[in-house]
Amino acid sequence: MNLELMQELSVPTDSKIVLLVLDGLGGLPDENGRTELEAANAPNLDSLAAASDLGLARPVAAGVSPGSGPGHLSLFGYNPFEYVVGRGVLSALGVGFELGENDLAARINFATKDGSGKISDRRAGRIPTEEASQLVEEIGSKLDLDGADVTLLHEKEHRAVAIFHGEGFSDALNDSDPQRTGLEPLPVKPQEDTPEAEKSAALANEFVEKVDAILESKEPANTVLLRGFGMHPKLPSFAEAYKLRAAAIAGYPMYKGLARLAGMELLEEGEGVAGEFQTLKDNWDDYDFFFVHVKATDAAGEDGDARRKSEVIEEVDGLLPELLDLGPDVLAVTGDHATPAKLLSHSWHGVPFLLRSEYTLPTAESFGERTCIGGSLGTFPAEEIMGLLMGHALKLNRYGA
Amino acid sequence: MNLELMQELSVPTDSKIVLLVLDGLGGLPDENGRTELEAANAPNLDSLAAASDLGLARPVAAGVSPGSGPGHLSLFGYNPFEYVVGRGVLSALGVGFELGENDLAARINFATKDGSGKISDRRAGRIPTEEASQLVEEIGSKLDLDGADVTLLHEKEHRAVAIFHGEGFSDALNDSDPQRTGLEPLPVKPQEDTPEAEKSAALANEFVEKVDAILESKEPANTVLLRGFGMHPKLPSFAEAYKLRAAAIAGYPMYKGLARLAGMELLEEGEGVAGEFQTLKDNWDDYDFFFVHVKATDAAGEDGDARRKSEVIEEVDGLLPELLDLGPDVLAVTGDHATPAKLLSHSWHGVPFLLRSEYTLPTAESFGERTCIGGSLGTFPAEEIMGLLMGHALKLNRYGA
Repeated sequence: MNLELMQELSVPTDSKIVLLVLDGLGGLPDENGRTELEAANAPNLDSLAAASDLGLARPVAAGVSPGSGPGHLSLFGYNPFEYVVGRGVLSALGVGFELGENDLAARINFATKDGSGKISDRRAGRIPTEEASQLVEEIGSKLDLDGADVTLLHEKEHRAVAIFHGEGFSDALNDSDPQRTGLEPLPVKPQEDTPEAEKSAALANEFVEKVDAILESKEPANTVLLRGFGMHPKLPSFAEAYKLRAAAIAGYPMYKGLARLAGMELLEEGEGVAGEFQTLKDNWDDYDFFFVHVKATDAAGEDGDARRKSEVIEEVDGLLPELLDLGPDVLAVTGDHATPAKLLSHSWHGVPFLLRSEYTLPTAESFGERTCIGGSLGTFPAEEIMGLLMGHALKLNRYGA
Repeated sequence: MNLELMQELSVPTDSKIVLLVLDGLGGLPDENGRTELEAANAPNLDSLAAASDLGLARPVAAGVSPGSGPGHLSLFGYNPFEYVVGRGVLSALGVGFELGENDLAARINFATKDGSGKISDRRAGRIPTEEASQLVEEIGSKLDLDGADVTLLHEKEHRAVAIFHGEGFSDALNDSDPQRTGLEPLPVKPQEDTPEAEKSAALANEFVEKVDAILESKEPANTVLLRGFGMHPKLPSFAEAYKLRAAAIAGYPMYKGLARLAGMELLEEGEGVAGEFQTLKDNWDDYDFFFVHVKATDAAGEDGDARRKSEVIEEVDGLLPELLDLGPDVLAVTGDHATPAKLLSHSWHGVPFLLRSEYTLPTAESFGERTCIGGSLGTFPAEEIMGLLMGHALKLNRYGA
């Protein structure tokens, strides 16, 4: 998406847009030849599709499976290659930490070092969450860095995240994780010749050295490996790029975090899809763009449970009338990527996309991967979705006379 | 379109291409579920479609409604973001003025200034065309600029266009129009730090000052606002880019002007579609590319008159055999953008595209938005059309061995 073009052409209006994201919506046929969406009994989505523009959205690049970061950035109209969100940043967002503009984040793995200083286990035997959590607390209470303040947050098992607070940082740094056992941890080195990168590398090495001293007598977690250094990607906000008052309704910290990167307001969501839709209703008058995120489709796909994924779609379908009653001017239903139950993971496949407004060219009677392929949008890059939403909401001026 | 590639691969041959543009052809379903094109009784277009490649062409960008300038530039294979045609340039073209390579054009609005110098009406009460036309004449006879010669041409009501003739101009200038009443006109300032922009800004301000002196005692039009400074976009010509001897048959100055920008010869057109087709016949031997422009589809769409838009299509359909009798090697029928009667304006929607040659892969029995979606070209960028025409005309060498 050309964000400068959006910025130039967009005008604030009263029309309201809802982007309903069923995480990992795209799928593949099961033994009966039907995808999870095609197999779902979803009469409301089918009726909606019969009045909608349909298409199959392609996230990121041909054959490439996107993570949640790039998947959502594309949906929000940000080129995921131009705006890179480091793993450390996603980890920070994932535990609900709102990254400052100057913060430097890195993912931490607790690991085991042998007597000769070589890594013998890159995950410290996947130590239990509780044990790792206590270690994080102990390090936090003892650690004193010369170079910066640091926030340490535990994620799960052997994983945690460090956020360094200060000025003049850079994320152009290599991982200290050597990727294989039997090797010493790598010193963190600057990947570009700037004072910022040098300062950040020195800080990261100071961090590892001092944490190692604290962990010296522990086992199995007697060292840490740093990975995925990242800083705030400084996206043009939805207010800047689209002149939208945007709000996010999402149950999981990661998606809240991604929405915050785009400058959306976070709304306190209720329980489950019903709770999210209630939150939408409660805040309907205060925003003109709503990002609503449903996680359970992706989780079912990652578990390889096609039937459960269909059931989540059916649950959303059952609640859809409540959303439609609000009368959004534009409603899109899609996913950030495919998570076919057959693959048990994110995939590169196309994602069904449906857009309902007054100005559509309907082509089919049901919502599914194959009806989307034949839709008026054909197969198209997910990055174009925001332009379509803005156009259909009549929020874009004409380009050129 | 990669024009350098076209330039590299194109070869002059005797084959003939006709690009028939029904302005604003794309539409949306009416209450019976049929678009203007789908509702038209057009047996000749349908027969043609049954032997053609079909597709839905997207002008400019997802969700973005193009003006006539960008719409036609895309059709002609020029990237509308790379080649920007300022509003002033289009105004000049629209009144039939052929802009020189060094000319600077700006659109003029007659406006009303109150005693304190603030704009009280940005359109001078939309003064009658005749009155404005007299003012333009009076200004033209009295005005004497130090910095350049100027041509003043009236458009309609409060609108006119100024073309400054000289050397070393730049169109990197802000509008003097403050966009709201109650504010003073803005001084024109250079938007880049070049002698050209400074010189042009000084000239524009001199123009406003001297015109104000001439209009001082008039009412309601006692000042002018300048907007949309633009210069000749210097497109590679059809002869350079495609090695085509190209001619244009168009009834309206704007489209003649756009064709001239691309280096096409203008043919004197007869009355209406029949007259245009007669002109085509009369000049058939002298060119190998014809751009034929029909305006009435767009006008009907902008009036919200779906039935009349269908009738214009039916009129073209009735005359189509005369065109086909000429035996063009390649005939394309499409629009520069959609103008759905439902929207009463240009829109971002896909535009039906039909290409007839000996080398097509037909998919449907009729010409309509929805048969085009399922066509061999699918949904595709309008900028690719010239490549398709050239390929089907066997005017492109193979790329690579």
